[in-house]
Amino acid sequence: MSGADRGILTVVSGFAGSGKGTVMKKLIQDHAEYALSVSATSRAPREGEKEGVSYFFKTRDEFEEMIRKDEFLEYAEYVGNYYGTPADFVYRMMDEGKDVILEIELQGAMQVKKKYPEAVLVFLTPPDANTLYARLKGRGTETDEVIAKRMRRAAEEASLLDGYDYIVVNDEVDLCAERIHGIIKAAHHSVKHEKALIDSLTEELRDINL
Amino acid sequence: MSGADRGILTVVSGFAGSGKGTVMKKLIQDHAEYALSVSATSRAPREGEKEGVSYFFKTRDEFEEMIRKDEFLEYAEYVGNYYGTPADFVYRMMDEGKDVILEIELQGAMQVKKKYPEAVLVFLTPPDANTLYARLKGRGTETDEVIAKRMRRAAEEASLLDGYDYIVVNDEVDLCAERIHGIIKAAHHSVKHEKALIDSLTEELRDINL
Repeated sequence: MSGADRGILTVVSGFAGSGKGTVMKKLIQDHAEYALSVSATSRAPREGEKEGVSYFFKTRDEFEEMIRKDEFLEYAEYVGNYYGTPADFVYRMMDEGKDVILEIELQGAMQVKKKYPEAVLVFLTPPDANTLYARLKGRGTETDEVIAKRMRRAAEEASLLDGYDYIVVNDEVDLCAERIHGIIKAAHHSVKHEKALIDSLTEELRDINL
Repeated sequence: MSGADRGILTVVSGFAGSGKGTVMKKLIQDHAEYALSVSATSRAPREGEKEGVSYFFKTRDEFEEMIRKDEFLEYAEYVGNYYGTPADFVYRMMDEGKDVILEIELQGAMQVKKKYPEAVLVFLTPPDANTLYARLKGRGTETDEVIAKRMRRAAEEASLLDGYDYIVVNDEVDLCAERIHGIIKAAHHSVKHEKALIDSLTEELRDINL
């Protein structure tokens, strides 16, 4: 009767330096009901990586065949290797009632939205630009040149945030994870997620015998 | 820096028999941060009704002058009397950081959405049409004819629910109130509510001195 049984697809992106990795870890740790999507890639497996856990490993030909068959929610090519999200894998988890989370970048998020408009797009940001800079600098692992490049990229991304549904400030990891959790819970009641409920109500009300 | 300080405007509607009144009472009781909007009306005050609490009482001329000046978020005329929501009153509470809740019917909700697209529109429904019928019947206060009329109206409303953002099932009052609370909390992070944050981030990232 209700469409609420199907899972929600949430896409989480964020600036490099937004602390996205830590927030996602906290979210999954606190809420076992969420499933993380597994990407496909054409790059070779590295030591310790497991098929279907780390990635679905494909040859270049296999990957390109999947592109031709329109089997990806999104994909991109980085330094000669393909990376993408197989739609079938995601949809199957959602059909089982799992809320699925995709951790991908802005360009991929926009592709997902186009393919599956019911997806909930969340973007993580530090409270302000100075905090972002301080976090990148504080890592101590990147040259000033790389940091400057990331900041320029963040500036570009900021101008495209209209394409997202939510922007969540990561001032504190626990709070930020709970905000995302709340957003996904609310999405279960969105009209676009509850189409089946609305259809059945409309039908029942039309056909009821008074 | 953040636009989060401004309140959210939430519109709550529901079928007659959805239990909306009870749910709203529970929501306000549990969460003192919410303010209920006060309507203006051209009907005469009844005994015990207080200006600015029950209603803002206006003469017909005053009300029509307000319509001409476009001072309502929504208004309608019922059996010869005007009822409406003064925009100024609502916006002032929101500017003070209050989340404001408007309890109005579908036609009014659509007017609000047009005037203030950032509003969050929530529609309450019993789990199914039979429950709705049983609740109306169970009140024991209405004739079969009136009940049939309400059911036909519900059928019409159901076909217009696409205009809402959320549809919330009222299976249990406490749960339903918490769902609405969660929806409003999530709305504070929506991109359309956080425009000021996005603008300031974009500006800061563009101007930062590396």
